[in-house]
Amino acid sequence: MKKILGTTLLLLGVAVLGQTKEDSVQFNRISTEILNNGKGYNELRELTKNIGHRLSGSEAYEKSVKWAAQKLKDAGADKVWLQEVMIPVWERGKESLHIKTANGSWKNLKMLSLGNSEGTGGKDISGEIIMVKSIEEYNALPAEKVKDKIVFFNYPFSQSFIETFKGYSDAAKYRVTAAALTAKKGGKFAIIRSLSSAFDDVPHTGAMRYEDNVSKVPAVAVGNTTADELETLLKNQKITAKLNSNCGMKGEKLSHSVIGEITGKKDQSVIVVGGHLDSWDVGEGAHDDGAGIVQSIEVLRTFKKLGIQNNHTIRVVCFANEENGVKGGVQYGKAVKENNEKHLFAIESDAGGFAPRGIALDMDDTKRNQIKGWSKLFLPYGVYNFNERFSGTDLYPLHDMGIPAAELMPDSQRYFDIHHTEEDTFEKVNRRELLLGAAAMTQMIYMIDKNW
Amino acid sequence: MKKILGTTLLLLGVAVLGQTKEDSVQFNRISTEILNNGKGYNELRELTKNIGHRLSGSEAYEKSVKWAAQKLKDAGADKVWLQEVMIPVWERGKESLHIKTANGSWKNLKMLSLGNSEGTGGKDISGEIIMVKSIEEYNALPAEKVKDKIVFFNYPFSQSFIETFKGYSDAAKYRVTAAALTAKKGGKFAIIRSLSSAFDDVPHTGAMRYEDNVSKVPAVAVGNTTADELETLLKNQKITAKLNSNCGMKGEKLSHSVIGEITGKKDQSVIVVGGHLDSWDVGEGAHDDGAGIVQSIEVLRTFKKLGIQNNHTIRVVCFANEENGVKGGVQYGKAVKENNEKHLFAIESDAGGFAPRGIALDMDDTKRNQIKGWSKLFLPYGVYNFNERFSGTDLYPLHDMGIPAAELMPDSQRYFDIHHTEEDTFEKVNRRELLLGAAAMTQMIYMIDKNW
Repeated sequence: MKKILGTTLLLLGVAVLGQTKEDSVQFNRISTEILNNGKGYNELRELTKNIGHRLSGSEAYEKSVKWAAQKLKDAGADKVWLQEVMIPVWERGKESLHIKTANGSWKNLKMLSLGNSEGTGGKDISGEIIMVKSIEEYNALPAEKVKDKIVFFNYPFSQSFIETFKGYSDAAKYRVTAAALTAKKGGKFAIIRSLSSAFDDVPHTGAMRYEDNVSKVPAVAVGNTTADELETLLKNQKITAKLNSNCGMKGEKLSHSVIGEITGKKDQSVIVVGGHLDSWDVGEGAHDDGAGIVQSIEVLRTFKKLGIQNNHTIRVVCFANEENGVKGGVQYGKAVKENNEKHLFAIESDAGGFAPRGIALDMDDTKRNQIKGWSKLFLPYGVYNFNERFSGTDLYPLHDMGIPAAELMPDSQRYFDIHHTEEDTFEKVNRRELLLGAAAMTQMIYMIDKNW
Repeated sequence: MKKILGTTLLLLGVAVLGQTKEDSVQFNRISTEILNNGKGYNELRELTKNIGHRLSGSEAYEKSVKWAAQKLKDAGADKVWLQEVMIPVWERGKESLHIKTANGSWKNLKMLSLGNSEGTGGKDISGEIIMVKSIEEYNALPAEKVKDKIVFFNYPFSQSFIETFKGYSDAAKYRVTAAALTAKKGGKFAIIRSLSSAFDDVPHTGAMRYEDNVSKVPAVAVGNTTADELETLLKNQKITAKLNSNCGMKGEKLSHSVIGEITGKKDQSVIVVGGHLDSWDVGEGAHDDGAGIVQSIEVLRTFKKLGIQNNHTIRVVCFANEENGVKGGVQYGKAVKENNEKHLFAIESDAGGFAPRGIALDMDDTKRNQIKGWSKLFLPYGVYNFNERFSGTDLYPLHDMGIPAAELMPDSQRYFDIHHTEEDTFEKVNRRELLLGAAAMTQMIYMIDKNW
């Protein structure tokens, strides 16, 4: 019995080794193809330079829909279609923030209204600035100290975390809630220190939220050096701030996510790979999330180009409206439910086009452990971290339906220097880093397609 | 016996766990201190913007010697000194490369003479270009086909390797040997395609070598797009190239490496951390190797700032002349031997100021395995690769003496886009990436100092 078991194990071992060898050869074919012939970098140049930033509801976004559909066809998709989705329309318009210091002169500050914020309707709103360092400090203030004031939430982005996403999560509540907090105590508007890892004067926009039955006061962000200046000035003097802005919600509009797929050879259960096609209305939306879009298209192209026979349908989804509503992701989830489409796995790339370091896995432990069992295959590609448990924002409706979801984890050090800013441009993306992210996703999907 | 052994193992286990806990706390203190208060980034700005590139033998290099000595004092070194070293002096001077195409007009090409190359003495040297794709192809050519020609070694930097240093090693023989190969068959000078991972027109310089008893013909590099153009043109027509350059060796000169240390509290055996202070004569020598210099100084500062009691002497060495002679490294090794100084470990950072991914270990397996046993401590800092076996160029004399040597391994994707070019500037360095490299070296030295 022992001997037979030994032989069986031995045979099994040889089979597993053979398997691993075959997979390792395929991993190498994938990365070699993408690093040498990948089109993602040039496609990103087109998207960012010919179309530019593309907020949901803008003409540019609609151009990007046509562009993505064409690129999916060029990449060899068997089927390409647009998925209708109603999206909120937010517009920025003209905006300015000034302060009056002790010497009585007004000074213009570099700023951006936060996304989804209401403006001042083109009128000046002014008041004295009060500064707090934290929400706790703000909560301790009596309402009469806040009434008619401008609240400056001066909470710094923590440099201490190694993963900058942790610093971002830590500070994000200020961006999301500053306006509502301010309004609840009668303040006129909120200024926040940008969620930025850089020591510069670049303001970062990004989504904020109002609360029901709380008045909608504006919220704006200033860059780190402006925040530092304000902090210093406020130590010695009273400062008046004056905001004039025209931003606000302009109803809803019919728009589209873009979908393309290569049909499964064995069955038509679906593996999703995607990013979001929209961006904020500043910069070029290069890392956020043009990168995720071109990487996802690269996955599909690579399967076709290398002639890898996919058992299951591999579907690229370019989600609409991640930045200020996640309506594309929600709509996609709804359609999956309505059409009763079986989904095996979904992965999003929405953390920048930097060199990949891992893939976060949001699924049950059996599946997580199976994937972790493949980690040796990924190690030569610099992809070693399979320990995190989260997935792309657009995938939460799928995850809520029990579908295994994931997110590419690129190196995070540079992302929050440029995230949601004028600086998120094509020039900040490195060709090899971008393409290695596409390779890691292709390799993962190859394994899922083969083994699930 | 079993029980006693069990208890012993348990106690040992608790001790080891306690140890690991203490180390993990210390690792966190180190990274938090450096990410929040590290001075390396601002120091790099000073070095690159106030001094700029600093080839051995240049006035700028001598300025950087004074600068580094001062920074080591500021960082809290107990002792700072200059180590004398004779270095070769190579100067570039004016240079130009033109080609004459079928239409008869001359066209200027962007180029850089390779480092250590002789020039044309200010005279024009011209001839017909012949192109080869590889050394094998060149070796197969009869000498009469090469005589009086200009040889264009058009070997592309391979994109297929994941670690770009492998692509660099693969192509480096062209830079090093093109001139000697050309001269041996009577060619007039050599042009090489730059050792560049970028698809741009930036020429990369770097060291070449002549052979004894082979005439010293010039060698120059052109960027990738110029190389592509040449390749296309040469398919259909004869091209004449004309070089005029003034570069060449100008004898030797006395110069200095800069050394600073904090004395060991237990003994004075030495742990070295270093980089090279010199750079090529283009760009600002930011990643190569200003980064390694400021990171090494950061290690020393962090030990002092956190009050970590170092058992052994921690010594920062800013080596002279790595780029075109390694005379600083050789002289340092000589002095160690002459003074019979015990060295425990030496690490260099000379692969760019990018986010660290590993530390290469060039030492016996016992020591390697001990260090690998610490890898879990490094993992939260994104440092996971301890499998490579090499060490910094300046450390080879130490390694040859049997001293355990190492090199920081930053992410390599962007390095060969800018290596040895006008593009290696401060702006290409990210603050957090640079500082994380300093943190990883400090953590490693903390472990070595404590355990060896």
